[in-house]
Amino acid sequence: MLQSQLFTKTRREAPRDEDAKNAKLLIRAGFINKEMSGVYSLLPLGLRVISKIKKIVGEEMEDLGSEEILMSTLQNKETWEKTGRWDDKNVDIWFKSRLKSDAEVGFGWSHEEPITALMRSFVTSYADLPIKVHQFQNKLRNELRAKSGIMRCREFLMKDMYCFAKSEEENMDFYNKTIEAYKKIFKRLGIGDITYLTSASGGVFTDKFSHEFQTICDAGEDTIFVNHEKQVAVNKEIFNRETLEKMGMKEGDFEEMKAAEVGNIFNFGAKKSQDMDLFFNDSGGVKQPVQLSSYGIGITRLLGVIAEVKSTDESIIWPETISPFKYHLIQIQSDSEKMEEINKTALDVYRELGEENVLLDERDLRAGEKFADADLIGIPFRIVVSEKTVSQGKIELIDRVAGTSKLLTVSEIGTLT
Amino acid sequence: MLQSQLFTKTRREAPRDEDAKNAKLLIRAGFINKEMSGVYSLLPLGLRVISKIKKIVGEEMEDLGSEEILMSTLQNKETWEKTGRWDDKNVDIWFKSRLKSDAEVGFGWSHEEPITALMRSFVTSYADLPIKVHQFQNKLRNELRAKSGIMRCREFLMKDMYCFAKSEEENMDFYNKTIEAYKKIFKRLGIGDITYLTSASGGVFTDKFSHEFQTICDAGEDTIFVNHEKQVAVNKEIFNRETLEKMGMKEGDFEEMKAAEVGNIFNFGAKKSQDMDLFFNDSGGVKQPVQLSSYGIGITRLLGVIAEVKSTDESIIWPETISPFKYHLIQIQSDSEKMEEINKTALDVYRELGEENVLLDERDLRAGEKFADADLIGIPFRIVVSEKTVSQGKIELIDRVAGTSKLLTVSEIGTLT
Repeated sequence: MLQSQLFTKTRREAPRDEDAKNAKLLIRAGFINKEMSGVYSLLPLGLRVISKIKKIVGEEMEDLGSEEILMSTLQNKETWEKTGRWDDKNVDIWFKSRLKSDAEVGFGWSHEEPITALMRSFVTSYADLPIKVHQFQNKLRNELRAKSGIMRCREFLMKDMYCFAKSEEENMDFYNKTIEAYKKIFKRLGIGDITYLTSASGGVFTDKFSHEFQTICDAGEDTIFVNHEKQVAVNKEIFNRETLEKMGMKEGDFEEMKAAEVGNIFNFGAKKSQDMDLFFNDSGGVKQPVQLSSYGIGITRLLGVIAEVKSTDESIIWPETISPFKYHLIQIQSDSEKMEEINKTALDVYRELGEENVLLDERDLRAGEKFADADLIGIPFRIVVSEKTVSQGKIELIDRVAGTSKLLTVSEIGTLT
Repeated sequence: MLQSQLFTKTRREAPRDEDAKNAKLLIRAGFINKEMSGVYSLLPLGLRVISKIKKIVGEEMEDLGSEEILMSTLQNKETWEKTGRWDDKNVDIWFKSRLKSDAEVGFGWSHEEPITALMRSFVTSYADLPIKVHQFQNKLRNELRAKSGIMRCREFLMKDMYCFAKSEEENMDFYNKTIEAYKKIFKRLGIGDITYLTSASGGVFTDKFSHEFQTICDAGEDTIFVNHEKQVAVNKEIFNRETLEKMGMKEGDFEEMKAAEVGNIFNFGAKKSQDMDLFFNDSGGVKQPVQLSSYGIGITRLLGVIAEVKSTDESIIWPETISPFKYHLIQIQSDSEKMEEINKTALDVYRELGEENVLLDERDLRAGEKFADADLIGIPFRIVVSEKTVSQGKIELIDRVAGTSKLLTVSEIGTLT
């Protein structure tokens, strides 16, 4: 894409009411726009990152045999009353409104109840199970305080997956497979090395109730205790003698760190299905409640967490897999007769690497401004075409992660993608 | 995809409270699930159709030079007060709720105000214009009555595009280009021949205020007057002597028909920008209001309209471009020793045509049930593999639109895609 065609421009200042580094950077770089506290719109560069995160997550969900659906935001009161979760005393983050008929309507903060209700139309026999479905859905939550920028929002995109199984064993088998798929996802997203599976409630790693994936991040809201050597971590809430004994480890083996929850997995067992009246006939013709587990990943939160951990106060370096573009191609303006050659070389490189992979900064600006913008936008590979490089018949390729740079001929560029 | 892996099953009956043919068919075929009146979830087959509609629409928007964004559902009261459209007396379809701070918050039924507000951060000079942006966004509207199935919903996916221009001329130039892009879209969606550009307010085809795209459809809510020969139509509201005189036509030249609005385009001129304080400096340094036009297409409505017009009471035939799969491959179960060959042939065809393009019905059901399901699901090309066809070393390819059928060898199948 030509940078002159991008309607967003970098800004020197973030809104004054914005405290979080991730939101400041993402706003300044033109990835998101703040609509109100805890509510952001996605601008072209931000939407590109989100699309790439969704693609990676979606591929791994499909590999698990999950089918994609999309449920509604508007929520039926009756559906949620069955589990007592319509009541604001039990769930304090509902947004609610009223239809013209004066009937109450809710706005989806989760979809466990409606997806379970939906399955009543499709599940009758053990032969129908297991069923795995997932969606990328816009959740609305009336948080008391929205903070940490795009890491905790009142509106956010979530991938939620559900498994409906005919036995505890089938359910746990899928639970364990999903843990492996999640590890693969966070690795593909470039944060595998700083993301830990943690036990979040009940027992430790044998616990079947809930686990989280926590990414080490100073701006995170959670505290976890990490053993780097064994690559295990424990949430603060259950970091106690009982847990340590079960693990055969001692307090000194762990380092206390701040972290952000990027994924969570729950096993509801048969409870939700019993409340929602979702039963099946087993192979012996006996009526049984369906086993349910659910699996979340915060898609927009990941945009925030990754911006937070892969940045300084003035620059981002996106992991290659989710960067809005792989290459930032910067042509340095010149007053000399070399300008024509610079232009031509930049366009040759642009076409060779493909418009989809390259943001070409062909704007008539000083080199310093271009580099400052490029630092902020955060594309990991930078290609510079200047008077100096073209004089040698070369372009300069900079790997911002490795901090290395090399001169290449244009014909060598073709081997890069 | 293997049909046995699809969690949805066809249903004999639609919900009793569902009157519209499109919703009845789509629910029975397992494309959508009714959550409440005017609110539907998208199931795997439905989401596949929506994804294909989005892809076609998105490609044409990008060809117009538009950049994709995604704005928030949660809406800021202050932004909408600037145009008077926060007031329920002026806009009677708002869903509203309150934050914990007791501040009012709205749920987006349109995004003209926030997109105009957003542009204040990016537009200062004529050199920044024109800007074209579009999004696929989930709109929420508190309709008094939700009717016509998925053709008029309280929650629906809309493509909305906005053009910010530096002059009336630039604005109208884009307006006219978009009309051509819309014609192309409806043609690609398979409804070009029954979709008319109609003038919706003010003058006739020279009118610069608003136009609609109306698809002829008995279940439509609108009435239009169509001249088939000249391929023009007029909305009932402005079908009067003045309009006819301008067109140089007479009442008898038109046929009254029911239609559904699938697209609309508005020219706001400078009005919205003046209200929202969006100005730019022209080439002479003079402050000018930005010209705005907006362009909608009802994405989920199209799912309903196309299901409505491309169906009988018991069957759908999707246009090939948006069908969930191109081919429905039906293997007819047999008790004879031919079953193994039927299985093998079906799998050969499945692999040859590609899993993404084929729904393979390998379920252990009677032929009659399979054909009834296939009629309902609505895939345009059907391939039958039966004892009879494999005895001749063939498969049968049925074109449901043309109503033709031919016998092919498996090796001839490769030439189809």
